[in-house]
Amino acid sequence: MAPPSHFYNNNGAPQDAASYLHAGPGNAPPQDSCLLDADEFRRQGHQVIDFIADYYGRMDDYPVHPSVNPGFLRRQLPDKAPSRPESSDAFGAALRDVRDLILPGMTHWQSARHFAHFPASSNTVGALGEALTAGINSVPFTWAASPAATELEMVVVDWLGKALHLPESLMFCGGGGGTLLGTTCEAILCALVAARDRKLVDIGSGRIGDLVVYCSDQTHFAFRKAAHIAGIHRDNCREIATYRDDMFALSPAELQAAMQADVDAGLVPLFLCATVGTTQTTAVDPIRGLCAVAATHGVWVHVDAAYAGSALVCPEFRHLIDGAEAVDSFSMNAHKWLLANNDCCALWVKKPALLVAALGTEQEYILKDAASEGHDVVDYKDWSVTLTRRFRALKLWLVLRCYGVEGLRDHIRGHVRMAASFEDMVKADPRFQVVAKRQFALVCFRLRAPEELGGPKAANALNRRLLEEVNAACSGPYMSSANVGGVYMLRCAIGSTLTEERHVREAWTVVQNVASSLLTKMEMHEDY
Amino acid sequence: MAPPSHFYNNNGAPQDAASYLHAGPGNAPPQDSCLLDADEFRRQGHQVIDFIADYYGRMDDYPVHPSVNPGFLRRQLPDKAPSRPESSDAFGAALRDVRDLILPGMTHWQSARHFAHFPASSNTVGALGEALTAGINSVPFTWAASPAATELEMVVVDWLGKALHLPESLMFCGGGGGTLLGTTCEAILCALVAARDRKLVDIGSGRIGDLVVYCSDQTHFAFRKAAHIAGIHRDNCREIATYRDDMFALSPAELQAAMQADVDAGLVPLFLCATVGTTQTTAVDPIRGLCAVAATHGVWVHVDAAYAGSALVCPEFRHLIDGAEAVDSFSMNAHKWLLANNDCCALWVKKPALLVAALGTEQEYILKDAASEGHDVVDYKDWSVTLTRRFRALKLWLVLRCYGVEGLRDHIRGHVRMAASFEDMVKADPRFQVVAKRQFALVCFRLRAPEELGGPKAANALNRRLLEEVNAACSGPYMSSANVGGVYMLRCAIGSTLTEERHVREAWTVVQNVASSLLTKMEMHEDY
Repeated sequence: MAPPSHFYNNNGAPQDAASYLHAGPGNAPPQDSCLLDADEFRRQGHQVIDFIADYYGRMDDYPVHPSVNPGFLRRQLPDKAPSRPESSDAFGAALRDVRDLILPGMTHWQSARHFAHFPASSNTVGALGEALTAGINSVPFTWAASPAATELEMVVVDWLGKALHLPESLMFCGGGGGTLLGTTCEAILCALVAARDRKLVDIGSGRIGDLVVYCSDQTHFAFRKAAHIAGIHRDNCREIATYRDDMFALSPAELQAAMQADVDAGLVPLFLCATVGTTQTTAVDPIRGLCAVAATHGVWVHVDAAYAGSALVCPEFRHLIDGAEAVDSFSMNAHKWLLANNDCCALWVKKPALLVAALGTEQEYILKDAASEGHDVVDYKDWSVTLTRRFRALKLWLVLRCYGVEGLRDHIRGHVRMAASFEDMVKADPRFQVVAKRQFALVCFRLRAPEELGGPKAANALNRRLLEEVNAACSGPYMSSANVGGVYMLRCAIGSTLTEERHVREAWTVVQNVASSLLTKMEMHEDY
Repeated sequence: MAPPSHFYNNNGAPQDAASYLHAGPGNAPPQDSCLLDADEFRRQGHQVIDFIADYYGRMDDYPVHPSVNPGFLRRQLPDKAPSRPESSDAFGAALRDVRDLILPGMTHWQSARHFAHFPASSNTVGALGEALTAGINSVPFTWAASPAATELEMVVVDWLGKALHLPESLMFCGGGGGTLLGTTCEAILCALVAARDRKLVDIGSGRIGDLVVYCSDQTHFAFRKAAHIAGIHRDNCREIATYRDDMFALSPAELQAAMQADVDAGLVPLFLCATVGTTQTTAVDPIRGLCAVAATHGVWVHVDAAYAGSALVCPEFRHLIDGAEAVDSFSMNAHKWLLANNDCCALWVKKPALLVAALGTEQEYILKDAASEGHDVVDYKDWSVTLTRRFRALKLWLVLRCYGVEGLRDHIRGHVRMAASFEDMVKADPRFQVVAKRQFALVCFRLRAPEELGGPKAANALNRRLLEEVNAACSGPYMSSANVGGVYMLRCAIGSTLTEERHVREAWTVVQNVASSLLTKMEMHEDY
């Protein structure tokens, strides 16, 4: 059939692929090796470095969170890509647009006043490690596809595991092994599929609908998402209730009751996702007790330490994973609080062979080469959802080299200390309460509702309004919220690399001032 | 219980988290905001840019593939991270180690002589776009978490879709929509889970074991991997045989027969993964015919154009996806051949609501904010496996801006032209044959086995040896292989940004010389 009209050239004659091949020399476009020219890279590269350095230097001038409405940027950009670069300095023009159009619409996660969610801790070495990786641009999906990249990953996951005081059984040096993925959801999904496949061998592959997975009502949604993707029935995900009296930790006794009930109902317990440092309040599930329960049911235990895993670099936090020798897999996001820049999720497993059995390729046609055959070589494509992968090990290795384990401890302790200060300030103001005991560098707090205000719903509305007005203050802090057991609270997560004591004090002053103003309005019955 | 001994400080007294909080001012370590100091970033950043530029300048000096044995790097590195940085210029020392230890052990995907696998096309703008993203280090998991990052992604997937001549129904402007993920396996997995969930609503969630997915025996393993992860029974993945007479394309008639057989057996056809540009030989499945078959069975059609999708920027290739209006989803890796640097996989879907239904979070506690409620806002965390994500749109937008659609066409056509030259050279040497018709910039070829050599097995051995010796040539090309229908062949994939005509000619000369030497040895019965 004839191609549509715009596939014709200017003469109206149809032009097919072959006609481009036999164009005379006069028609041949320039070869594009200039697109990776070393001198051009140097020129543009120095521009970019100065651009980013200027951004860091100006960070304080930006509101952390932009005051923009949906569609603000889409409306400003053309609806299709240019046919040719607009000017001879297209790169410079684009950088100016990044500065003038894009940065003002970003949420500035590196701002010293970013206290929302969890940190995405950047630093010069991690950021430049990413730049190096992008410059080298290798695809280390097998050992052969980039031997040094694979081996550095093997080295650095052991380095990190030792720095975090993980059991040796999870590291290469102890018969296990680790890999660097993008995110926790990927890590859990990989572990879950390995566990699922092992279990289905035992009970028969037709019984996928009988498999049950366990977590608490505080577990991050990433787990439910992973379980759903892996084909676990939505009704077979047990979210076990937690209580404030237990600091929102999952109770082994409740887990045992839930598993036994499932067994009695003819179902098959499969997988437990325990959390060290939950997203809402940084609760820590008791690993040893949970593993003991899981073991009686042949259940795979994964520990999700996405946020708090970084704190394990400090020995004073190691007791939080006592009993971790019994877990099957463990993951943490080094990009959250360990300076590894987004993205960098480390996953360790006790039995890599189970990962490979679940995720490995059977077709080896283009992937094997003589060097890897018959040797103890890791092909990381078989350890993850993805086949293509980035050389993430480089930045993590640079961070560990350049700061050292003690440097990372200083980094964590500095934030924990600032969070303790913030907590003390909250406690010192009787209008406020700390809602969940602080364990790391997250403080969960709320304004106590005046008695005359009414019930819990009104108290939540008050605190929601408090957060909105705090976040609306132009040069103020940016925080987020949690809702645990029906109680709405503000979350102040300290962890941005640029955050100093003064930012924490200033943030608290803003919260106090907004609260005073809100309470005054309430007394005057203006708003309630 | 007592912590192990190394958690005690030098005095032997146990030290807990609290003791670090109340250290006197003299004991307080420095605040770590200096880790993101603008001036330090500038200093280290310029070092890194020069380092990468020097690497590009020196690229030709490296063998494409290192001659190293498993363990070569692990043996050279310490078994744990340093406690403190080794020197005051730890970063400079680490860069020297990258140069002296790591680069010599890399496979240099950016080498002009890298013809293996598929290209990972880098360029100054794409690489520096990654560096910018790493410097900004935002986490745009929701619109609110970085409005400009989300909106730029929405803009750029439409730009790219238009540039590739995709149907508007797959773009935001036509009621569909796209996102930027890491890899094709993720893209297929997302589409598959959406399709699975929709089908299970119709047939009952207990019937996951009855779902059947379809592909050809040429489809990339990523599809089988995704299907397995999603809980599709391994026995329910139909790999339909292809034939050289059909140029290894999937036949609609064979697909229809397979689907009907499954229906007759009480199974439920779910999903077809069609490929435009297979990994082994760049075969193109006939979209229109396959979609017609799929429609009669209510089957979701995904098109995996991981490699060849980039070629669609040229109108002369558009006919290869005729009928794409009927597909449900489409993905391609802009990091392979469209200068977007690893990683950047674009996924478009006709009905984003189905993706969100399958992958969306139910808990909105910390994720929503007032700005996004009630508006037509995309929260990309609900479009993918991962929640955390990188700001990939920035580099792709920079590439499209700085080269323009015509610039990308020149880039693709240059490689296609060089591949055609290579193909002509192969054809001109009667000792060789082109095994699969060249469609893009991959040439699959082999040495014809002399008659006296024996059967196909010996011919394969000869070509395997040819590849090994070609790849062992120190400053020679690096190619990979395929095995289709029992026929082993060499793959010469042209697509590195630095590759020029002369590299292609030189590569062919190496192949010819190695072949001559091999054939001479054979004649002398030295080796056979």
